[in-house]
Amino acid sequence: MHMDTVLERVRDCIRKMHGYVPGKQPAEGQYVKLNTNENPYPPSPVVMEALRQAVNEDLRYYSDPLATPLREEAARHYGCATEEVVVGNGSDDVLTMIFRTFLDAGDVLVTPSPSYSLYQVLGNLQAADYREISMGPAYTLPEGLDACHAKLIFVVNPNAPTGVLHPTEALRDLLRRSDSMVVLDEAYADFAGQSAIDLLSEFPNLIVVRTFSKSYALAGMRLGLGFARREVIAQMMKVKDSYNLDRLAIVAGCAALRDQEWLRKTTDRIIATRTSTLEALASMGLHVPPSRSNFVFPRIPDGRAAEVHRLLEDRRILVRYFNAPPTADSLRVTVGTDDDMTTFTETLKTLL
Amino acid sequence: MHMDTVLERVRDCIRKMHGYVPGKQPAEGQYVKLNTNENPYPPSPVVMEALRQAVNEDLRYYSDPLATPLREEAARHYGCATEEVVVGNGSDDVLTMIFRTFLDAGDVLVTPSPSYSLYQVLGNLQAADYREISMGPAYTLPEGLDACHAKLIFVVNPNAPTGVLHPTEALRDLLRRSDSMVVLDEAYADFAGQSAIDLLSEFPNLIVVRTFSKSYALAGMRLGLGFARREVIAQMMKVKDSYNLDRLAIVAGCAALRDQEWLRKTTDRIIATRTSTLEALASMGLHVPPSRSNFVFPRIPDGRAAEVHRLLEDRRILVRYFNAPPTADSLRVTVGTDDDMTTFTETLKTLL
Repeated sequence: MHMDTVLERVRDCIRKMHGYVPGKQPAEGQYVKLNTNENPYPPSPVVMEALRQAVNEDLRYYSDPLATPLREEAARHYGCATEEVVVGNGSDDVLTMIFRTFLDAGDVLVTPSPSYSLYQVLGNLQAADYREISMGPAYTLPEGLDACHAKLIFVVNPNAPTGVLHPTEALRDLLRRSDSMVVLDEAYADFAGQSAIDLLSEFPNLIVVRTFSKSYALAGMRLGLGFARREVIAQMMKVKDSYNLDRLAIVAGCAALRDQEWLRKTTDRIIATRTSTLEALASMGLHVPPSRSNFVFPRIPDGRAAEVHRLLEDRRILVRYFNAPPTADSLRVTVGTDDDMTTFTETLKTLL
Repeated sequence: MHMDTVLERVRDCIRKMHGYVPGKQPAEGQYVKLNTNENPYPPSPVVMEALRQAVNEDLRYYSDPLATPLREEAARHYGCATEEVVVGNGSDDVLTMIFRTFLDAGDVLVTPSPSYSLYQVLGNLQAADYREISMGPAYTLPEGLDACHAKLIFVVNPNAPTGVLHPTEALRDLLRRSDSMVVLDEAYADFAGQSAIDLLSEFPNLIVVRTFSKSYALAGMRLGLGFARREVIAQMMKVKDSYNLDRLAIVAGCAALRDQEWLRKTTDRIIATRTSTLEALASMGLHVPPSRSNFVFPRIPDGRAAEVHRLLEDRRILVRYFNAPPTADSLRVTVGTDDDMTTFTETLKTLL
C-alpha cells in the first residue's frame, strides 16, 4: 500500500487538524520559567518520602484500575462520596473522558472566550462543533451560553489565560438555566479560595475538574480529579483507560492531599507574590486583569506583545504568548518566586 | 436538570456499553497471582536506581511532551528513527491513539478471534463496527481478514489468550494483500523472539505496539510504545494527550531499555518455566496450545473451566477466566516462578 492510501485511512477530522501546542519545556535551570504555570516551590516532602518508599518491586504489578486509595482520600478532603470522584492522568485526561463520554460527531460544545486552548483540540478529536462566546473586556460570563443548547459548556474558573474569577452566583445561575452539562475547570481554584464542588448536591449537570499540576507542584506526575454525581462518574469510568494512573502517581496524589499545611504555606506565598507583581505591573501603567490564579495577564501596549515575548526569551525569561485574538495583545506570566518576578518586571521595564 | 435528562446527554454508544473488566488486583502477597500476565521477577535494578534519582524537586515541572529521551532510546534499541516511535501511558494508550486516529462512527475493525478483549471496548468508544473472524481450532490466521475492507485489522502476536505465534510469512502475506492498516500487538513478543518491527520499511500500512508491562516487569509504571512510518506517527501525535507520560515513567522506560542483560536473564527463566509448565499440563492429559508467550491456556475438560477457576481462587490461586465462547472452556494462566507453577499444577491435579 502507498503512503497516500495509508493517509486516506486517517479520519478527516484528524488529518485536517493541528495538534495542541504545549508550552516550551527547556532543559531546566537555564531559564526563568514563567510559561506553563508550574509551581515555583517543590512538592511536599511528604510526597517525596512516599514516592521513595513506593519505588520497589511491586512496580511489576498493575496499578489499581480504580485508584481507590486516591479516590477515597479525595472524597475525604473535598467532602463527597468516593463514587463521585474519577482520577485522571493529569486533568487533561479527565477532560478527554468528558469529551468522549458526551460528544458525538457534530455535537456542540461552547466556552466563554478566551479559554483553555485544549478544548478546541479535544473538540476536533470528536469531530464536534466547537464554539466560543466572547466574555468582553471585563471578562465576565457572557449571555447566551445556555442558548446554544450545547451538550457541554466549559468554564475555566479562575479563567485561563486572564486569571479572572467568576463569582459562585453567576455559575449557579448558569447551572440553573442550562440544559447542558456544565464543566467547571478549577485547575487554579486553590489560588482563588473558591470552589463549586459543594454545588454537586444541587446540580446534577455539573462536573468539576481539578489538577495537581499547579497548587500541588506535581505537573511532572500527571494527576487530575473529576467530580460529578455518581451516575455521571459511572459513565465516565467506561471511557477511562483501565490503568490510567501508574502506581507512583496514585501514591503521590494521596500523600499530596494529606499534607494540606504544605499546600497552604506554598499557596499563600504565591498569592503574596501575585499581589506584589500585580502592583508592580500597574505602577508601570500596564492594564492587568485582577488575577485570582497563579499567573498574571498584562496587556502589552502598542501591539508589541509578540515582540516583547521574543525579547524576554532572548533574556532567558520564558512567558506564554497566544498568537491569536482575543489574547494576542497580552502575555501570560506565571507567578514564580519573588526573585523571579523582580527579574521579570525589571526586565520588562527596560523593554517597554 | 434531572438525572434522567443528564444521562440523555451521554452518547448512545457509551450508555449502552459495558466497560472493560480488568483482571483482579488484590492486595499483594496473599495470592499466587497468575491472572494478569505480570512478571514474577522484579524490574531491573538499573530502573530502580534511576527512579530513586528522579524523585526530586523537578517533579514540579511538566514532563517532556514528546518524551524525546525515551523515543530516542527506543529508536536505538529497535533500529528505527525517533520519528517512527510514539510513547503511550501503557500500550492501551497507544491502542487508544490508533482507534481515535483511524475510526469514525460506523467504520469497521476486525480481529482474529479469540483476541484481546479491549479492542471491542475501544471500538465501542468510537461507535465503530467491531468484527471477529474465528481462528479455528489451530489458532491460525483466518482467511477473510482483508476481505472485510476494514479500516483496521488487529492481530495480537503471540496471540492472547492462546499464546500461539503467527509466523512472519503469514503476517507479511496479510500486509501485502490488505488495504487496511494492520496493527500487530506485540505485547508478548519478547517471550517469542520474533518481531515485525523490521517490516516497517516494507509496509507503510503496518503499526506495531509494544509494552513494558510484561517482559520489562513494569506493569505498574504504564509504559507502551508504538512503531509506524513517520507520516502515520505524525497523525497519531495529534491524538496523543500532550503530557501522556509522567517524568518517572520516561526515566523508567529509558533505564529499562538500557539494561538488556536483565531482560534476557529474566525472560530466559520465564521461558524455561513455561516449557516445564506446558509439559506438566500435557502429562495431566490436558490440551494446551503451544504458547510462545508468558502464559499458558489449558483447556479444562467436561465444561468445568468456570468451576475450576473458582476452586483455584478458593485456594488463593488467581488465574484468568473469560466467560464467553470461544475461550470459555479454558483458563489463562500466567507463567510465574517455578514454585508458583508447581503450586498451580499440583493444585489443579487435585481439582480435575
